[in-house]
Order: sequence, then structure tokens, then C-alpha cells
Amino acid sequence: MQYWASDYQEGCAPEILRRLNETNFEQHPGYGTDVICEQAKAKIRKACGREDLDVWFLVGGTQTNATVISAILPSWQGALCAASGHINCHEAGAPEYCGVKVLTLPGHDGGKISAAQVEEAIQAHDNDESADHIIGPGLVYISHPTEYGTLYTLDELKALHEVCQRHQIPLFLDGARLGYALAVPGSPSLQEIAANTDVLYIGGTKVGALFGEAVVARKGLLPHFFTQIKQHGALLAKGWLLGLQFDELFTNDLYLRLGRNAIEMSDLLKQRFLEKGYAMHPATPTNQTFVVLENGKMEALRKEGVVFSKWERLDETHTVCRFATSWSTTKEQVEALGKLL
Amino acid sequence: MQYWASDYQEGCAPEILRRLNETNFEQHPGYGTDVICEQAKAKIRKACGREDLDVWFLVGGTQTNATVISAILPSWQGALCAASGHINCHEAGAPEYCGVKVLTLPGHDGGKISAAQVEEAIQAHDNDESADHIIGPGLVYISHPTEYGTLYTLDELKALHEVCQRHQIPLFLDGARLGYALAVPGSPSLQEIAANTDVLYIGGTKVGALFGEAVVARKGLLPHFFTQIKQHGALLAKGWLLGLQFDELFTNDLYLRLGRNAIEMSDLLKQRFLEKGYAMHPATPTNQTFVVLENGKMEALRKEGVVFSKWERLDETHTVCRFATSWSTTKEQVEALGKLL
Amino acid sequence: MQYWASDYQEGCAPEILRRLNETNFEQHPGYGTDVICEQAKAKIRKACGREDLDVWFLVGGTQTNATVISAILPSWQGALCAASGHINCHEAGAPEYCGVKVLTLPGHDGGKISAAQVEEAIQAHDNDESADHIIGPGLVYISHPTEYGTLYTLDELKALHEVCQRHQIPLFLDGARLGYALAVPGSPSLQEIAANTDVLYIGGTKVGALFGEAVVARKGLLPHFFTQIKQHGALLAKGWLLGLQFDELFTNDLYLRLGRNAIEMSDLLKQRFLEKGYAMHPATPTNQTFVVLENGKMEALRKEGVVFSKWERLDETHTVCRFATSWSTTKEQVEALGKLL
Amino acid sequence: MQYWASDYQEGCAPEILRRLNETNFEQHPGYGTDVICEQAKAKIRKACGREDLDVWFLVGGTQTNATVISAILPSWQGALCAASGHINCHEAGAPEYCGVKVLTLPGHDGGKISAAQVEEAIQAHDNDESADHIIGPGLVYISHPTEYGTLYTLDELKALHEVCQRHQIPLFLDGARLGYALAVPGSPSLQEIAANTDVLYIGGTKVGALFGEAVVARKGLLPHFFTQIKQHGALLAKGWLLGLQFDELFTNDLYLRLGRNAIEMSDLLKQRFLEKGYAMHPATPTNQTFVVLENGKMEALRKEGVVFSKWERLDETHTVCRFATSWSTTKEQVEALGKLL
Repeated sequence: MQYWASDYQEGCAPEILRRLNETNFEQHPGYGTDVICEQAKAKIRKACGREDLDVWFLVGGTQTNATVISAILPSWQGALCAASGHINCHEAGAPEYCGVKVLTLPGHDGGKISAAQVEEAIQAHDNDESADHIIGPGLVYISHPTEYGTLYTLDELKALHEVCQRHQIPLFLDGARLGYALAVPGSPSLQEIAANTDVLYIGGTKVGALFGEAVVARKGLLPHFFTQIKQHGALLAKGWLLGLQFDELFTNDLYLRLGRNAIEMSDLLKQRFLEKGYAMHPATPTNQTFVVLENGKMEALRKEGVVFSKWERLDETHTVCRFATSWSTTKEQVEALGKLL
Repeated sequence: MQYWASDYQEGCAPEILRRLNETNFEQHPGYGTDVICEQAKAKIRKACGREDLDVWFLVGGTQTNATVISAILPSWQGALCAASGHINCHEAGAPEYCGVKVLTLPGHDGGKISAAQVEEAIQAHDNDESADHIIGPGLVYISHPTEYGTLYTLDELKALHEVCQRHQIPLFLDGARLGYALAVPGSPSLQEIAANTDVLYIGGTKVGALFGEAVVARKGLLPHFFTQIKQHGALLAKGWLLGLQFDELFTNDLYLRLGRNAIEMSDLLKQRFLEKGYAMHPATPTNQTFVVLENGKMEALRKEGVVFSKWERLDETHTVCRFATSWSTTKEQVEALGKLL
Repeated sequence: MQYWASDYQEGCAPEILRRLNETNFEQHPGYGTDVICEQAKAKIRKACGREDLDVWFLVGGTQTNATVISAILPSWQGALCAASGHINCHEAGAPEYCGVKVLTLPGHDGGKISAAQVEEAIQAHDNDESADHIIGPGLVYISHPTEYGTLYTLDELKALHEVCQRHQIPLFLDGARLGYALAVPGSPSLQEIAANTDVLYIGGTKVGALFGEAVVARKGLLPHFFTQIKQHGALLAKGWLLGLQFDELFTNDLYLRLGRNAIEMSDLLKQRFLEKGYAMHPATPTNQTFVVLENGKMEALRKEGVVFSKWERLDETHTVCRFATSWSTTKEQVEALGKLL
Repeated sequence: MQYWASDYQEGCAPEILRRLNETNFEQHPGYGTDVICEQAKAKIRKACGREDLDVWFLVGGTQTNATVISAILPSWQGALCAASGHINCHEAGAPEYCGVKVLTLPGHDGGKISAAQVEEAIQAHDNDESADHIIGPGLVYISHPTEYGTLYTLDELKALHEVCQRHQIPLFLDGARLGYALAVPGSPSLQEIAANTDVLYIGGTKVGALFGEAVVARKGLLPHFFTQIKQHGALLAKGWLLGLQFDELFTNDLYLRLGRNAIEMSDLLKQRFLEKGYAMHPATPTNQTFVVLENGKMEALRKEGVVFSKWERLDETHTVCRFATSWSTTKEQVEALGKLL
């Protein structure tokens, strides 16, 4: 079997596994009140280049999105995002379950939204004679990489943040796969991202941890967030397990190195696809490769034990499929797939 | 430092850690759709002595309670439990956040409720002239062990279940510390518990796992529960991590053996306290020991590095404190504490 | 001043006012448990041509939509509707506040959706490999007249109902302005609507009552709905006030007669606009007239004391404006407006 | 039939009915944006003796409680009230449906709570080592009259407010029957109540209006409350109907005069009961009379067509029953009942 379905199909980076083994019988207070968590938070603040940040560790992405978004929004405002945004499409209505209205904009360039679109949506609400009867934007949600694997440029991010600041609306960046963005040459650095958002989360689950997402917020943005994490059922009893994973990820640039492997392997994989004449849809710089497969070829690959995701039907005879590399993908794995193309 | 604050202050049982190491680079599909989870579910069904059970794995207890309870209850019914029930006191309003009204009964014998109390509550609602304006019981929640470490007898459990069945209301048993109940001689077995409840969860977090709770429900009780787990942000991406932990816990009776260690160490600890003239409040058969400490002694112990929980103020000069043993507590640790008493 | 902003800017039909005066000192039990409500429900069942219907009275439209929809939907399903649907646009997020995800389809012919679109949406969900992670349709919401004043034909309604029945998903018709639909020649009758939906509401607020909406549902569709009405804060203490209004509306065809007046006045008003060369956008058969006004003309009318709604910006120099007639509009009012065009 | 079941079994005061007749064909903008509402708000501010108050009109009590409480509370805090509080007992879980945890204190003197109890509850939360895992008080809810018809003294109210202010927690007074409190000699005046609460509502439904409750809040306490009213389905389209009722109630002291009638009739009724040897349980100064009836007598009265509420079972042979007078009760009605005792 060859698994390309996702970037969360193996355990964790060896460094993390080693740390788990070393610390297994250490005793720690629960709920993230331990010293390892403190140390990990300090390293994350440093990596973000700012001290005025609050950091919390949660277990998974859907949980993190729902907890952060409902903590920020009052009931009379909603979350503005691309129609293809993860919170709108693939989280089983978790935001709505928490009372949040998701307000959508058409995405472009693979699920991105622009500062101009956000400005227009805010203006449209504010200028509506019935504005008081309508949920207006109270937060902007973007994912980076997007659900289609594309990236915001630093200029785009700055423009989005500028609009948000002008209207006093937080900008929230979902970084479930942030490691794979940071590893792409020329894309915004973690410091630049931290400087141009109000809250983000650094994804661990998909970038080398067993599980875990680190929420990084402008100091004071999320009062009593600890209790809200608990209320959402998102507080890990053995919280140091989250701390130690992020402590390792932010030691010796492990997070970046894991990201880089996925990008190198993804570049190689894309090259193999292109050599064989396959088309990208869309072309992406990150670890998710979206390829157009003729349906017969798609079934043939599946029969040979290649596991990947059907993304969307393109036409009668073709399907867009997703192949994801990860921190753990090897050159051998890529070449083995290459031979079947 | 001596840590007695809880039963979740170390990592996991060595068997689980070994399994994590062995499987780290195996590739699995996400969200618990893997073969390890299937295998673990089969073992749990077998341990429960019934095949007509659905099993799911979630990450933590508060999350599990909120997800199960809100999945069962329609909006016009509430969850009946002891006033001291965990869902009422220590879950940061998670049930209410999900729209659930918690209906309380005075607990007895350390947080237990009786079949007669449940019967009376249901009758009181049904006979009220304004019943349609009042949330009546739609589910009975008990914890076993209770929050005070006490246990239901098999007869008590049968009587509760009989009342619930007669009124077609599910009985839900919170087994966050179930392993420590099963290890107490004479208390109901897992088979007996599974036969006399509609849904329960087998706690992993507090009984030797890194994290994880196994929900075991009468077949069909929780339709579309997978989507609801996702909606509650409780679906672990690398779901096999839950499966492998429960697979180990239910191999060679590990779960029972871990429970037994905690009970043996707790018995020894209680003996040491009693020898020195301390009173229990209440006396409990499980791994949580509630001791009355004179406040001066309490502070002295804390100064010597003994970490435990202040449970409740007894009077001006005394406090009830909780000392918890666990699957990992050693005789040496107990005797070291004994010397300080 | 000339008021054309809405169809709810006067009190109530004289017949209702008379009844209020006559019954003011009668004593009735509360919450709609009185004989007037029973009588009104019987008349509504008769007007619908079916006895197997449950009827309830609520106060307003947004309240009714939220209460009905959240009573029907389990948390893992959402409400499918046109993007321009009232529940999606103008109810301040009331459905989402109740945990409901609104799933939108592009509207056509003035905010309508088709059976083919519904079928496609259901299929798309069911065929998605990640269906369990995605909220699928659990109810179809249509408004009739739509938010743009257009109407479903009987064939369209039958086709929608057939798709819904095949997939066991209720079809819910929002009839806030139903009286103005029923009065349009050739449009579906109340009996035909009741036969081709699972639940609808007959709007009183906008069609001659002081307030009130009558929910009419397939028997048994909404168990314990009384308690849910109370829970939503939608249970009127003096419930007979709702009963007597609907009792009058369904006596001697008052509801139809009120609707007919609005349509006749609307037809005359449209004629006056067309005579002066104004364009409709869209043309509608019901009591809402959407006219393209040159912005200078729009401001001039407003200055002369004509009150109407700005609906949407058409281009730099033109705006679509809404003029609504109602059960109380007189020929003199129309001609007075006509003179200003 | 003699109706004593409640104080909302007739229509409205003649002054209000007259106004409805006079204004029926006036045209007004919707949603309470009309001049009558403005005028009524001004009169209420004046009656409260303060200009720094925001006023809104809602339709009913349960709706008002849920909307106000959920607007005030963040998700990490709950509403502290007597266990017998209306929000805890008789609102079908409306607060919990909105995510609110209701925190209860034992009531005394007929459902009252004291400043000392509130202080203790706040302290108990703040001093708990697990405070971050526990919902603490974020608002204090009292009803005046209480659910048992008793009243707070001015000193009690001041003490409650002082505790609330010290802890920066709003004090919310549910005045569903406020008119019947204000009419009791020696009880706090409306000005005194407005000066010693943060938000209250003045009940119309039970005191002479067809429906309607006026929320009176410290300026700025409830930002964007209009949108939240809409979101709760509590915004009346023909909002002036609420305005005109309160405008009449606050013209020529009508509200006080209506209250006074109920109290005079209630005093007479209590006298008749006491003359015949019946016991009060509890004795109350307001319009609700709680009488101990021997069960045989209770059934006999019911057979003679006297309608009243069974309140609670006292013992095997006696029941506490409630007889409510209202703004419309006449001396003849009281004496007719007196003859049957």
C-alpha cells in the first residue's frame, strides 16, 4: 500500500517520540499548568518575534477553530471567510453548533480572499438600511496554506490585516498546515505572520506531532480563554503532552525542517506528475498536490494500492485527486509512486 | 516533590508506550477508521460480554460527557444527576453550552443517587400541572466511582436501570475512573455494568493511557454519532492513537491490573493515615482518599513539597484534602508520604 | 407622508379589531389552551383540506422559522435554502444561534430553488467521501412568496416535495406573506400547498393581523413542540389573542379577501409605474413591487415624503426600490403616489 | 366559572384598548422605530427618575429573561438566582438553550436571596482552587415580586446591589408582576428599584397590557441589543403596539392604579380566606394568595367551577393552591368566591 491521502497518517517526529519516552514517568500538574508548557510557550513567542502574545495548546483543528472563533465573536457578528474555508465546509457545522454564523466570500487563486473583498463586505453590511437585522463580519478567517494548498503573499496578508485593523475586527489565521507554508521560499515568515494577524494557530497534528495546535493571540484578545477551552471539551488533562511536542517542534528549527522535507518531496512528486503529462488543478507551492486523473487511471492506481483523496469531479471522464506529502515522506516513496504514473 | 494531586500526572503504562514506539511509522487512515481501532472495539465488546454495542473513542472526559449527553437529549429534556455530579460542578458549563439543562438531586453516600430519587423526580415532573413548561428528566447521569470515590452496588445499579427502562430514559455511566471501580472486590464487573446501563464510557486518561475515553453504547442509541463527535471538535485526526491505547488496555487484563495497583496503594495509604489518627471524609473504597487535615498540618505538608488537592473547608481549623493514587503509584511513594504524616 | 415601506405598517383588519373589543373582558386560560384557539385550528385544518395536521400559533416570523427549523433538524443536518432566503439574510443569525447551519443554493426567478437543485445538493453530500464530516441537507426551506415577491407554481412545488419525500427530508414553506400568494390567480391554493409540504406557516403579521403566524405541520412531525415554543420564548401568555385573530382570518374568507386587496392595489401601482416608463426588477405577481429608480428621482420622492425601501444598488446611477401594498392599501393612496412618479 | 388561575386571563385595560382603536389605521415604521415607542420610553425614564437608561420593548417574560441574560453573560459565567427562580423552574430551559448555566441558591422568605448569600457564592467560586474549571456568578437574577409573591425591602435591594457593584456583576430584576409590588405600601418605589439594579423589566402582560415587557437598563449595558432581540425572535414587527401599551400604562399613573386594584382585591380575598380559617403558605403582600386547602375542599371548589392553580402538595391531605387577583378583578368576583369557601 502507498498512502498519500493526507499528512496525518503516521505518528510523530522521532524527536518527539524520544521526548515522550524520556518523560513518561515524570510527574506534572494537569491542564497545561506545567513547566514544559511554559517553556514551549516561551519558545513560540521567540519564534514569533514578539513577547506580547498569549499562547494556549489545544488538541485538534476543528476544536481550535470553534473555540477561538466563538471566544472572539459576540452573538451579533459572524466569521467572514472563503466559501471553501475549512470552517464552512469540513467541520460538521462546529461553528454553527457554537452559535456562529459563517459569512462566505467567493475564493480566488485556490481559496484565498482579498482585502478588497473584506472591505466590500464590511461596507455592504454597514451601508445596508437593515444592518441591525443582519449579521455583519466580526472576524476574518483565512487558512494558510488554504484548503487548496495555496499561500498568501506578505503583501496580501498586510492588506488584509490593515482592513481588519481599520474596522477593529480580528484577523484569524488557521495554520493547520503552517509548517508547510513556512517552508516555501519567499512566503511570509512566522514573524511576519504573527505581526500581521491578531490570532493564529500553529498546526502540530499535520506537521510532525501526534496531535496538538498552538493558539497564538495578541495579548488580552481572549480573556478567560482557559475556561472556554474547558467548556469546549478541548482541555487536555495531561497538558504537558502538548507542551513537550511543541517544545520539541520549536527546538533547533524542527518545525521548519519537517516542513521543508514535505515541500521537497512534494516538488519531486509534482515533477514526476508533470513529466508524465498530468495537469495540476490548481498548481500549488505546498505539500498538497492536486492532479487531474483520467478516471480509468484513477481506478487503476487505487487497485494497485495507492491511497489518495478524490477531491472533486472535473468532467465526465476526469477527477481532481489530492496527493499529500508530509514531514515523513521519503524519496523512495515518491519514486515508487512515480513508477506507477 | 511528592505528587498526590490526581491520577493523571504521569504519562502512560509501559505497554502503551512500547506500542506507540513500535507503530510510530506505520501508516493509517485518519479519524478512527483504521484496523487498530476495529480490533480495540472488538476487545471492548468482548470484555463487556455483549456484541450489540457501538464503541467510539474520544479524547477527554468533559468532551465525552457533553457529546454523549447532547446526542441523547432532545431540547425539551434534561440530564438528571447528583448535585455533586462532575457535569454539574467541574466542566465549566460544557453541558449548558450545548443547550443541556442539568437537573440535580441531593447526593448521598458520597455523591450517589438512588432509583427511588429518580422515580420521584420523573413522577414529580409528569404530575406537575405545568409539566409542558418544565424541563423533565430525559437521561440519568451517574459517575462510578463518584466524584467522592464511592461506588454503586450491583443492586443499586440494577434498580436505577430498571427505573430508567420503565420510563424509557437512558442511563449513562461516567467511568472516567472506571478501572479503579472494577478493581474493588465485590463491586460490579464490566459485564454487569454494561448489562445495566444504556451507555457508559471507559476512562483511559486517568487509568494508564496518555488520553482517551471509550464510549460504549447500546447499538443504535447514538445515530450519526461520528458526525456529532466531529461537530464537538472531539474527533482525533490520528484516531489510531486512541485505538492502540485501548487495544493495549484490553489485552491481558491490563486495564484491571492498572486499577488493582491503585487500589492496593490506596489501601496502604489509608492504613497509614488511619494509623496516625486521621479521619476519612468520606471513607471510600477507591483510589481517591479524602482525609481531614488540621490546617496547620496541611500547610506543613505543602511546605515539605507534598502536592494534593484542597477538597472543601470542613470547619474553621480543618480542611478535607484529596490524595489520589494511580496505576503508577509505588509502595515507596506511599511510605515516603507516610513518614511525613 | 406616504408609507410604502412594508406591509406591516398599520394595525389590523377591522374584523379583528372588533373581535378584540368584544372579547376583551372574557376570561381564558393561558398559553393557547383556550377554546378560541381550538376553533381557529379547526378552521385552518378545514381551509387546508386535511384533518391530519397539527396547528400552533406563534407571534412572529423569525421566531417561527427558528423554532420550527431547530425542532426538525438534528445537529448533524442543516437547512437547505436559496442564498437570498430570509433565514439566511435577514434574521440576525437566529437559526445559527439555535445551532442550525444554513446551506445555500443560488436562487433563480427571484429567489426560488428547484427540485433539481435540491436533488443535486443531496447527492453531492451523499457521494462525498467525507460526507460524515459535512453537514448535509435535513430540511428544505422555501418562502412563498419569495423575498423577491415571486411564486412557485404547483408543478414546482410538487417536484420539490417529491424530492424531499424520496430522501425523507421535510419541506418547510415560509408563508409570511402567504395571503398575497393565494390571491394571485393561478397560483397554488392553500389545499395544494398543504398537500405538498410537510410544514408551513400562514403569516398573519403581514396580512391583516396585529401579529401572529400559524404553524401547520403534518401530524406528529413536531413532538413536544409546545415545550419548544416555550423554550424559544415564543409562547404568548394570552394565547387566545392569536387564536381570535386567526379565527377571524379564516372566517368568511377574510384572509383571501385581504390578500386580494393588496394584489389589486399592487397591480394598479405597477401599471402606474410602467405607464411612466419605470422598469421592474424583477417583475413580480405579488404585493411587493421592485422598481428601478434613477437616484435623483429616488431622493426627490423621499423628499416629498414617500417612504419606501432601498433594495439594492443597480449601478452608479440607479437603485432598485421596493414598494409594498397591503390588505389596507387604498386606491387613493396608489393614485396619490402615481401623481408623483 | 370563576377564574383565579392567573393574572393574565383577560385582555387589557380599557385605556389601552381605546388607544388600539384610535391608532389602528395610523401608519408606523416597524420594529419599534416609531414615535410612540420613543414617547413611551421617555415616560418610563421619567417614572424611573433617571435619564441615563436604555429602554426596549419585548413581547413576553421568558423571552425577555433569556434575551437579557444571554446578552449580559459571557460563556464563562452563569446566572445566580434562587432555586425557585422562574428562569430555573418554569421557562422550559430557555436560559440553558441559550448556553446559560443557572446557579442556584436556596431561597428564603418565599423565594428571596440575600446579599450575604450572593457574597458567599462569589467568594466560594473565587477561592476554589479549580475556579477556572467552574462557572462562577456573572449576574444576579431576582424576581420582585418573587414566584411566591413576596417582596424585597429597599434595604435588601440596596445590599444586593452593593455586593453586585463591588464584584462588578449586574443585578437583574425580573418585574413580570412589578405593578403588584409597587402598589404595596412601604415597598420600594420604581425610582428606588431603578437606582438599585443594573437592569430590570417592567411587566406589562400580567399588569394590564395585552402583552409586552419593558427592559430598562443602565445606559450602555447592552450593546447591540436590538440585533440580539431580533436574533432571539423577540422583535415585534409592529413594534408600536408595544409602545402604545406602555405609553398608556405610564400616563396618569395607570400602571400604579392597575396594581393597586389587584392588591386591594387580594387583601379582601385574603381576609375572606382567613375569616374562614384557611392558612396562608406563605403569607404574601401581593396579588398572589397561597392558601392551604384540604384536598376534599380543593376538589369541591373545582367542581363548582372555580379555576385556580395547584401549587404544591403540602401533605397527604392538603395542597397549597394559588389564587391570583389582577388589575381587572372586581369586588363582586371576590365576594362570589368568598361565599364558596
